[in-house]
Amino acid sequence: MTIQRFENGPRMSRVVVHNDTVYLAGLTAEATVGKSVGEQTQEILAKIDGLLKQGGTDKSKLLQAVIWLQDIRVVDEFNKVWDAWVVAGSCPARACIEARLQSPAKMIESGHGGKVNAAR
Amino acid sequence: MTIQRFENGPRMSRVVVHNDTVYLAGLTAEATVGKSVGEQTQEILAKIDGLLKQGGTDKSKLLQAVIWLQDIRVVDEFNKVWDAWVVAGSCPARACIEARLQSPAKMIESGHGGKVNAAR
Amino acid sequence: MTIQRFENGPRMSRVVVHNDTVYLAGLTAEATVGKSVGEQTQEILAKIDGLLKQGGTDKSKLLQAVIWLQDIRVVDEFNKVWDAWVVAGSCPARACIEARLQSPAKMIESGHGGKVNAAR
Repeated sequence: MTIQRFENGPRMSRVVVHNDTVYLAGLTAEATVGKSVGEQTQEILAKIDGLLKQGGTDKSKLLQAVIWLQDIRVVDEFNKVWDAWVVAGSCPARACIEARLQSPAKMIESGHGGKVNAAR
Repeated sequence: MTIQRFENGPRMSRVVVHNDTVYLAGLTAEATVGKSVGEQTQEILAKIDGLLKQGGTDKSKLLQAVIWLQDIRVVDEFNKVWDAWVVAGSCPARACIEARLQSPAKMIESGHGGKVNAAR
Repeated sequence: MTIQRFENGPRMSRVVVHNDTVYLAGLTAEATVGKSVGEQTQEILAKIDGLLKQGGTDKSKLLQAVIWLQDIRVVDEFNKVWDAWVVAGSCPARACIEARLQSPAKMIESGHGGKVNAAR
């Protein structure tokens, strides 16, 4: 049994790899004031790509994703960016819900982190 | 390492199997207007049975479940159906919280999907 | 493939061990009226220590944690206790969101349970 941790701070790790399963922390966009849902989503998904790479995997191996939206009514705007990002034929099991996040300016927290597992 | 995906659309897969762990997508009942919490729960759990079967497993092997209720006060009504469904001695680790879902008419989203893992 | 379940009731198990992954149920403090966020967090984390032990592991092997706060504005108070509890260099991938829980008096439900996986 092996555990590897990357971007490992005193509160959480951004990437945890257990055997061949990769767990990412919850992620939000930075400096979100004035950024659209689409822009925030782009930023979060780019972060996820980077973290998956550190974990030795990529978005074609996503297993499970949970997405939290601060307002569920923006789901179409979120999905537009999401749909362009995922790999056809290799989409994760997904759940999308509304939840309040730490900063009101952070409109989207993608659970690809705390909520996404990938294989490697 | 193996990954299998079933009911695999352009946005998500309903079932993802990684080695011997099965992940389901988040699920809600269809055409929920006028359906009681109990009726919606029945419908969701029946869907889950079907998806678990596709993943090569069944409810006796549930590992983890997260349940989102649109109004946490209906939890007793939810539990009544849940308790009749789970297999005594083989219940999953469970969490039950309130969260807003995509359609107000969809009163319950069972995380058995994005939130449930099963073994097989 | 092996599954072990501990504190296994008719509705859920508090601990489910699948091969070398340990899943805990969602947890809240007991008799929360008049208890501060910090006190509730202490109580929950102590419960988690006990459940991890039953599962044959401990907090140095946490993989993933999801934390639900009834009011996201208490996150600093929560973090103070959390930061003292986690093992430096061995922190889980974490997500922290606001969600309503079953009892208004239960101010915090730590997802270390339904939301935390550990390795063993």
